[in-house]
Amino acid sequence: MIPQQKTSGMPFQRYRPFPPIDLPDRTWPSKVITEAPRWLSTDLRDGNQALIDPMNPARKMTMFNLLVKMGYKEIEVGFPSASETDFAFVRQLIEGDHIPDDVTISVLTQAREDLIERSVQSLVGVPRANIHLYNALAPLFRRVVFRASKDEIKDIAVRGTEMVMKHGEAHLDMTVIGYEYSPEIFTSTELPFSVEVCEAVSDVWQPEDGREIILNLPATIEVATPNVYADQIEWFGRQLTRRENTVISLHPHNDRGTAVAATELAMMAGADRVEGCLFGHGERTGNVDLVTLGMNLFSQGIDPMVDFAIEGGIDEIRRTVEYCTSLPVHPRHPYAGDLVYTAFSGSHQDAIKKGLEDLDRQAAEQGVPVGELPWEAPYLPIDPKDVGRTYEAVIRVNSQSGKGGVAYILKAEHKLDLPRRAQIEFSRVIQERTDAEGGEMSPEAIWEVFSSEYLTRETPLQLNSVHTSSAAGEKDALDVNVYVDGEIQSLHGEGNGPLSAFVAAINELPQQWDVRVLDYAEHALSAGGDALAAAYVECLVRDQVYWGVGVDANIVTASLKAVISAVNRA
Amino acid sequence: MIPQQKTSGMPFQRYRPFPPIDLPDRTWPSKVITEAPRWLSTDLRDGNQALIDPMNPARKMTMFNLLVKMGYKEIEVGFPSASETDFAFVRQLIEGDHIPDDVTISVLTQAREDLIERSVQSLVGVPRANIHLYNALAPLFRRVVFRASKDEIKDIAVRGTEMVMKHGEAHLDMTVIGYEYSPEIFTSTELPFSVEVCEAVSDVWQPEDGREIILNLPATIEVATPNVYADQIEWFGRQLTRRENTVISLHPHNDRGTAVAATELAMMAGADRVEGCLFGHGERTGNVDLVTLGMNLFSQGIDPMVDFAIEGGIDEIRRTVEYCTSLPVHPRHPYAGDLVYTAFSGSHQDAIKKGLEDLDRQAAEQGVPVGELPWEAPYLPIDPKDVGRTYEAVIRVNSQSGKGGVAYILKAEHKLDLPRRAQIEFSRVIQERTDAEGGEMSPEAIWEVFSSEYLTRETPLQLNSVHTSSAAGEKDALDVNVYVDGEIQSLHGEGNGPLSAFVAAINELPQQWDVRVLDYAEHALSAGGDALAAAYVECLVRDQVYWGVGVDANIVTASLKAVISAVNRA
Repeated sequence: MIPQQKTSGMPFQRYRPFPPIDLPDRTWPSKVITEAPRWLSTDLRDGNQALIDPMNPARKMTMFNLLVKMGYKEIEVGFPSASETDFAFVRQLIEGDHIPDDVTISVLTQAREDLIERSVQSLVGVPRANIHLYNALAPLFRRVVFRASKDEIKDIAVRGTEMVMKHGEAHLDMTVIGYEYSPEIFTSTELPFSVEVCEAVSDVWQPEDGREIILNLPATIEVATPNVYADQIEWFGRQLTRRENTVISLHPHNDRGTAVAATELAMMAGADRVEGCLFGHGERTGNVDLVTLGMNLFSQGIDPMVDFAIEGGIDEIRRTVEYCTSLPVHPRHPYAGDLVYTAFSGSHQDAIKKGLEDLDRQAAEQGVPVGELPWEAPYLPIDPKDVGRTYEAVIRVNSQSGKGGVAYILKAEHKLDLPRRAQIEFSRVIQERTDAEGGEMSPEAIWEVFSSEYLTRETPLQLNSVHTSSAAGEKDALDVNVYVDGEIQSLHGEGNGPLSAFVAAINELPQQWDVRVLDYAEHALSAGGDALAAAYVECLVRDQVYWGVGVDANIVTASLKAVISAVNRA
Repeated sequence: MIPQQKTSGMPFQRYRPFPPIDLPDRTWPSKVITEAPRWLSTDLRDGNQALIDPMNPARKMTMFNLLVKMGYKEIEVGFPSASETDFAFVRQLIEGDHIPDDVTISVLTQAREDLIERSVQSLVGVPRANIHLYNALAPLFRRVVFRASKDEIKDIAVRGTEMVMKHGEAHLDMTVIGYEYSPEIFTSTELPFSVEVCEAVSDVWQPEDGREIILNLPATIEVATPNVYADQIEWFGRQLTRRENTVISLHPHNDRGTAVAATELAMMAGADRVEGCLFGHGERTGNVDLVTLGMNLFSQGIDPMVDFAIEGGIDEIRRTVEYCTSLPVHPRHPYAGDLVYTAFSGSHQDAIKKGLEDLDRQAAEQGVPVGELPWEAPYLPIDPKDVGRTYEAVIRVNSQSGKGGVAYILKAEHKLDLPRRAQIEFSRVIQERTDAEGGEMSPEAIWEVFSSEYLTRETPLQLNSVHTSSAAGEKDALDVNVYVDGEIQSLHGEGNGPLSAFVAAINELPQQWDVRVLDYAEHALSAGGDALAAAYVECLVRDQVYWGVGVDANIVTASLKAVISAVNRA
C-alpha cells in the first residue's frame, strides 16, 4: 500500500553534491532579522544586461527615476568599459544632473588597467560614486577560463585595486570615491582563498573609520541549499580582520529558486548589504528580487526603507519595470502578481470575509481606524491596500461541465479572450451582483452583466464617426465625432497612433477625465476578412483603474470604443 | 559618504514579527539531503482550484496523464464533496480504469459527516486510495472563523477521523484505504496544540507497521523566514509517539517567495513527503514548485524519482502545464524558463565556450562520451541537454543607440514582434553566422539573414492557392495548391481550423514530415483594413522544433506560410 517511487532514469550520476561547510557552532539559525539591509539596485547593470531587448536611454532613465522615487540610495548604473551605451548613460546622468544628493551611483569594471581607466573617466564630475571591481576566483575559472594560479588570480585583484586608486586620484579630484570588490563565483570558491584575496584587497584600500570597503560575495550561481550560503557568509565574516570598516554584501542569483531565502539566511549570518533587481531580473534565472525581500521585511513589522506604495502602488512599480524590461511579472509573483490577493476557494472567501468583519468590529469597539489595528486576516499575509491593491474574490459559475470560470464562458460562448486583469475585474463585478442578488449565475446572466457593464453604456460618451490620417515622420492625427452627454461634438487629437490621439482628444473635454492608457490588447473574434475585432483597454480615469471593451469590424474603432467603455464605466 | 537610507513611510507598524521557535539544539542546519522525498502532486486539487479557468475534464485527464508519465505515485485528484466536477472526474478515473497499479489517488475532504460520506462514495471501486481530511487549528481561525475552543477544534479532527473509518468500512470494502490528516495553517498554530490534535487523530487511526498515517503540516500561508518552518518541523517530529509509522508531510505555499527553500530545510529537519504543484500553481502565490524541487535534487546527484526528461523534455512538461492551467511559466523560472540556459554577456559566453571545450577535451583524452564525465561548466548549473534544452548565446548587435537587440531591430524597422522563443531561436541563427564570418552585424545584414532564413525559402514547399470552408458543427475543410519540390499538387485536409487542416494535409505527403504545431501567434503589421499580418508558428518537424514566419494580407495565408517556413527550414 505504501507507494514505491521508481528511479527517474535521468543521468543524475553526472552531478556531485555540494560539500557542506564545517561550521557546527553557526549562530545564524537562532537569529532574527530586525532591520533592513543597505540595498543596491543592479537593475541597470546585471538586470539590463540580461534582457532580450536591453533598455534604450529613455527606458534606462525611467528605471533610474523609479529607483530614486522608491528610495534606493545605491544604484549600479552600468558597465561603461564594456558598453558605449552604458558609458553614455553614465555621462547623461552626471551631465544632466539627474543624481540626487543622497544617491550614490556605481559602475562595474573588470580588473584590466585600460578598462579601469575608462570606467573612471565615465564618472568625471560626479560628487560621489563607487567603483565596483570584480575578478573570478573559483577553481573551474582558474583552470579552464584563465589558466592561472591562485597567486596570479590574487594579483589581478590587488593590482586592480591599486589601479582604481591611481586612476581615481588622477581623474576624479572632485569625487568622493567608494570601493566595492567582488570575488566572483564566491559560492564555488574555496572559502580560505576568498578570505585571502579579500584581505589582500583590503590591505591596498586600507579601510578605516569613514572609509569603508564593500566586499560583495556573489552567489553568481546558486549551487546548494540556502543554508549553505548563510554558512559561507558567517564563516567568511569571522575571518575578516577589519570587520568594523567592512560592509559584507550579498549578490544572490536564483538558479535553485531560493535566492530570497539565501539572502535572508545570509542576512541572519551577518551580511550588511544586498544587491538585486526589482522582480528579479538578471542573467538566467535572475538576481534576487528586491520587491519580495523588501515586502517580506514589511510584513514582519520592519521598515523596508524603500517605498512599495508610491503613487499607483505596487502595480505602478510593476508596470514601469515591465515597460523597461519588456518582460512580464508572473501572475503568482509574491506581493505583486495578478493573482496573489485573489481567493478562489469558497472556504477561503468565507474565512477572509469573517476576518475583515472582525477587524471592522474591533476598530468600531476601540474607536480607531482599521489601519491602526494590527493586521490579521486569514489567507492575506498583508493588507493589499498597503500596496495600493485590493482583495478579490473570484466567483465560480456553478456548472457540471467543469468549465467553471466566468472567463471561460466569455471565451467559449462569445469568443472574448479577456486579459487576466480584466477577467479579475469582471469577476468582481459578478461577485457584487451575486452578493446583492444571492445564488449563482447562469451563463446567460453573466453575458447580460458583461454586456451592460462593458458594451452597451452610451453615456456620457458615444462614438459617431472617425477619420484618421498618418504620414511618415509626423504624428498621427484623428478627427472624431462623439456624443458627449447626448450632444454631438467634433474633436481633434494627435498622438503616436489612433489610440493616443483619441485619448488626447477626449482629455481636452471640460469633464477632465484625465484618461491614461495602461494596457491594451486586441484580437479577432474569428478568422477571415470580414471578422469582428475585440479590443481591451486598461485605463486610468481620474486615478481609478477601469477596463473597457470594444467590439467592431474596424480594429481602430474597436479600440476607441474600448476607451469609451472605460470612461463610461468610470 | 556612507549612504543613509530613509524610512519608507509605509505602515509597517501594523505588522508583528513572527516569534522564533525555541530550539537551540536544532540539528537540521548540519544535515544534507541525500534522497528524494515521497512526492504528492496536488495539481488537480489545490492547483486546479486556484485557476481563473479551472481545467475541464479533458485538461484534467491531460494533467493526470502527464503526472503519471513523469512518475508521480501519489496524486490528489480533487475535492469531490465540494465540487460535482471533481466528483465526476474521480469517477471517470476509476470507471475508465485510468489509474495505474502503482499510483495512489487521494481526495480532500472537510470534517463534516455528509462531506466525508460523499468523498468516500467518490472512491467506490478503486483498489487503493488515501482520504485526506483537514480542519483549521490556528488561533485566528478558532476565534474569528469558527468561534470554537481548542477542545472543540480537536474534537472535529477526532470525529472526522472516526467517520472516515466508519464510512470507509461501509462503502469501500474493495479498497485499501490510507489516511492523511492536515492540521490546517500549521505554521500559525501553537506547536503543542498541533501535536496534541495529531496525537489524538493517530490514537483513532492506530498506525502500525504496514498501516501508516500521513500527518501533513501545511505552510498554508508563509509567515516567516524558511528556517522557522524547519524548526517547526523538527520540533514537531521530536514530540511524536508513533514516529516510525508516521509520514511527516510538507505542504508549503510561496507567499514570501521561499517555498522551495522552506521545503528543503524542512526535509533536512526530518520530513518524509512533499506536496506541491508543477511550476507552483495553487491559491495566491501557489504551492511549492515540484519541478524546481526535483531538479534541485538532480543537480546535486540525487535521483529525483520523477522524470523531467520525458519525450519532448522539460519544454513538453511546461507546454502541457501551460495548456492545462492557461497560465504561463515565467521566462526566468528555474530549469524551465525561456531564458535560463541563455547567456547574454560576452564574458559569460566566453567562459561557457571554454568550459564546454574543456569537457570535450577531457572526453577525448579519456575516450568516453562527454555525458559520462561529471558536469562542470561556467554559469550552467546543469547540462541543458539533460532536460531536452540547449544552451543559447544571445548576440548583441553593436550599436551606440542602446537599441541593442536583434529583436528590437526586427520590431522597430520591420514591425515584426517575434515571440520570445522565436527571438532566441533567431538569435542562435545570427550567432552561427557571426561565428562563421566574424565581427558584428549591421541591422541590414540581420534583416537579410532573417529574410533568407524565414521568409524566402521556396523548397521543398511553396504555397499557390487556398480555399477554406467551415460550417457550424462540422470540421473546417481546406483545399490547397502547393508546389512540392517544384511540382504543383492539390491537397485536402480537415481540422478544427485552417491551420490544423493544413497540417493534416501536408502530413499526408510521402515526405512524412510529421508536423505538429506547438505554439502560434499572429499580429497586424499596421492598422487599417489593408494591413499585412505576420504569423509565427512553432512546429515540431520530425522531433525537432522550428519556428516559421509568414507575412500576408490574409491572416489565414500568413499562418499557412509560417508552417511552410518551418517545414522548409527543417
